[in-house]
Parts: sequence; C-alpha cells; structure tokens
Amino acid sequence: MIPPENPIGVFDSGIGGLTVVRQLIRILPNENIVYFGDTARVPYGNKSAEVVREYAIQDARFLLSRSVKMIVIACNTASAVALDVVRTNSSVPAIGVIEPTAREAARLSMTKKIGVIGTLSTINSCAYTSALKNEDARAEIMTRACPMFVPLAEEGLFDHRATDILAGEYLSQFVGKVDVMILGCTHYPLLRGAISRALGSDVKLVDAGEATAAAVRDLLAEKKSMNTQKSKPRYEFYVSDFPQKFNEIAERFLGRKLDFVRKVQIFSNGEIR
Amino acid sequence: MIPPENPIGVFDSGIGGLTVVRQLIRILPNENIVYFGDTARVPYGNKSAEVVREYAIQDARFLLSRSVKMIVIACNTASAVALDVVRTNSSVPAIGVIEPTAREAARLSMTKKIGVIGTLSTINSCAYTSALKNEDARAEIMTRACPMFVPLAEEGLFDHRATDILAGEYLSQFVGKVDVMILGCTHYPLLRGAISRALGSDVKLVDAGEATAAAVRDLLAEKKSMNTQKSKPRYEFYVSDFPQKFNEIAERFLGRKLDFVRKVQIFSNGEIR
Repeated sequence: MIPPENPIGVFDSGIGGLTVVRQLIRILPNENIVYFGDTARVPYGNKSAEVVREYAIQDARFLLSRSVKMIVIACNTASAVALDVVRTNSSVPAIGVIEPTAREAARLSMTKKIGVIGTLSTINSCAYTSALKNEDARAEIMTRACPMFVPLAEEGLFDHRATDILAGEYLSQFVGKVDVMILGCTHYPLLRGAISRALGSDVKLVDAGEATAAAVRDLLAEKKSMNTQKSKPRYEFYVSDFPQKFNEIAERFLGRKLDFVRKVQIFSNGEIR
Repeated sequence: MIPPENPIGVFDSGIGGLTVVRQLIRILPNENIVYFGDTARVPYGNKSAEVVREYAIQDARFLLSRSVKMIVIACNTASAVALDVVRTNSSVPAIGVIEPTAREAARLSMTKKIGVIGTLSTINSCAYTSALKNEDARAEIMTRACPMFVPLAEEGLFDHRATDILAGEYLSQFVGKVDVMILGCTHYPLLRGAISRALGSDVKLVDAGEATAAAVRDLLAEKKSMNTQKSKPRYEFYVSDFPQKFNEIAERFLGRKLDFVRKVQIFSNGEIR
C-alpha cells in the first residue's frame, strides 16, 4: 500500500498539462503533485503512435522513480495512444484525460449531439469519438482539428482579433448543431472566451482538466488514498528542457507561479533523471 | 577529393529547410541532393543550444554516411548555434543560412537600415545582428520574433485575414524604418505576400533559401566540385518521423512532389540510419 502522502504524478508532452494540474490543485488542495513536462520532445501530437508510446513509458517511469501514488496522463495524444502501455508498465493506477472527459460530456449533453475539438492527431485518433460512443451509443459526434489554437494559446492571444477570426472559421460548422463541446486539448481552456463567443453561450464547454481532476478525486477516494494531511502541499515541476519564455508561458497555464522547477536529462537508454 | 556527382547534403529540424532545397534545385539543377529533416525532434527553436548542437552533429553524421560532398544547415537555429561543431565534426565543407543571408541583405540595402524577423530563438541568438555587423559595422538593425508565422505557414494560411492582421502587428515597427528585411526563418518565404503587404512593396525581402543556394553555388565553383553530369539529378528525402499531413505540407514547401521519401531511425546512441 502506497502512503496517501505520496504525490500524484502528472505527465504531459510539454506545458499544456499544467491546465490539468491547475484543476487538480483546485479540486484536491491537500495533494502533493509531481509534474513532468517533456519539453525537450514536445509536441507529441505530430509524432507517430509508436514513438509516443515509447516516450510515454519513459515519462511514466520517471514519475514512478519519484514514488507517485498514481499517474495522470495530462496529454491527449498520449492518453489516446499510450494509456494501455503506461498501465502495463506501472505499479500504480494510471488514468488519461479522454475517458473522464467523454463521460462528463455525455452526462452534460441533453441532445446527445456533442462536438470535439483538438489537435490533428487527437482528432484523427478518433479516441474521443470511441469514448463517447462507449458512454452512449446514440451520441452524435462532430469533430474538428483546430491546429492554430495551440500556438495562439502559447502566445497569449486569448482575446485577439486573429483568434476570433480563426475560432469563427473552425467552429462555424458546430453552431446550432451541438449542445456540448469537448475542449480536447490541454491548451484550449485558455481560449475558452473566443471559443464560447464563436459557439454561442448556450453551448457547454467541457474542460478535460476539470473532468480529469474530478476522476482523480473519485479514484483516490475509492482506493482510500486521499491525502488528509493538512500540511502545505508540495508541487514539483520537472522538465526535460527549458524552452524560451518557459516561466511566462507556464504561469499562464498553471494560473500561479511555479516555485520548484528542475531540468532533468533524458539519457540515451530512455532513462529520465 | 570527393566526386562532384556526390550529393549536396541538407539538414533541417523538420520540413522548413525544403524552401532551401527548392532554391538549390532552381539555382543548381544538375546537383544531386540528400535531405534530412529531423521531424521526430522538431522544433529545434525552443530547445537549448546544448541540445541543438548535439542533434546537429548527429544530423550531419547521417548526411556524411550518405557520402555528401558538402553540408548545408538549412535551419536558422542550428546555423546560429551549431555551425562550428558541425564544421569540427565534418570532413566536408559546411555552410549555414545566416552568413550568406546577412551578406546578401547588406549588399542590397541602400540605407543600411535592415530588419530581421525569425523565431524567438533565432532573434534571441542575435546571430543575424552579429553577421550583419560583420558585413557592415555601420548597419542599423531592427529585429522582431514572429512566433505565429511558423504555424500560419504550415497551415497554408498564406493569404488569410488572420495572417494579415498578425503580420500587420508584428511588422508595424519596421514600416518606413528599413529598406531590406531578412526572412530569418525557412518558413517565412511562404508568407512573402502577407509580409510584403504589411511592409510595403518598396522593402526588399531577402529569402535565406535564395541567398544560401547562391553561396552553395559559389563554394562548389571555388572547390571545382560542381556536378556537370547532365543525367537527371537524384533527390532523396529522409525524415526521422512521418508527421500528420507530411506530404501535403512538404510539397507546399518544396513546390513539387517528393518522389523518394524514407523514414530513418534515431538510435539511442544518437546514430541515425
């Protein structure tokens, strides 16, 4: 039995997963968290499934070396193609963002007409479509890749005219057609305003971070592994490279300062330490 | 002495360098070319100099294994931080994109007021500023990173309203201030129209691909290594991963179909084959 004080481990291809950490901190304020962002190899979204699976195993091993009590794959691409191999290679429970998010979307939708937006690789993987069909076989799902949203979010162009124009183009096909929209990319919650303006305020937006954090809470409760210690939680952030403007962008995603950030190295045998 | 029939080797972090190959084919139609695009590890622009130098050495070794007669670093980031180590580790001449481009810009400028746009890492490296000062100590240089231009080019949004808006914002500081603008990123020639509209048609745009191809021609002439065989040249393209929409995007950059494309593997010791 792993002590409940041990941290929740979260990994992502880069900094996008910090929007998931933000929700974990909000929903589970007592938990310690260790985050690994594979900034040296970001993005995963344009890599082959084979490569992503290999990287995901390495990322999970790093978290296990930090004695995590569970693993959260806060990356849509890795959740879509590597959740199974991470589970096989892990001694602790692992969850991805896709199932919890699909479940929440199916729960919220009245019309069972659900939209999904994400990166090209997430959309092409059909992972959300399968998960939604699993939740409700009658669900009608409409999807679209919005490749410009990641750079727009990273540049902080949240309420920019160019963002509204691109959001308008990407999302026009959904207007009046869906009542729930899955933000199937960890970057997209930052563009919530522009997305909502394009879709209309009656469409409910499902943030993968929120849905996943709620699923983590349920899983910890089920495993009786919630941290009940009232001491100030520890948040540790590890990255495989320090990209340009890392702190500025990371703080935008996390919604707070990152106090403890360390660079780790990826060795030629795939070990990260 | 390496036979002149041996190919010119070109490497880049991804597909951007195909705009350099496009100019090489135009200016040197008899030359055989081997291209390596490190699509598994793209982009280099947000990685540390240390990592980029290591990758550049590996990329150059791969080209040397294909018996190239010279190496062209068709990547601004790698040219800025790794030209020296590539030269040290190479038995054949190596050139980057920065010096030839700076020389051409200095030659074309009447006012010696020169603009440079590129990725954040290229601009922060000050490589163009140093190279321009080397060409002409009196040159006044104004620079700006345009981070949205790479995704806009990859998405093919060349004459899109969002591109014009962003180009207008990025480039307003240059209007009336420079007579020559260096397109310091291999992706930017695809946005030539929007850049020119934002700057005004009297500003000369210097394309790193054109300038570098001319420098390659001069170097081959000097080394008496021009290929004079009139047989149809061979173009071979190697990539370390097949990203989504690879062919579509690559053809946009190269301006023609890629007939011979192979995926190579990066081994854990850094060897590529």
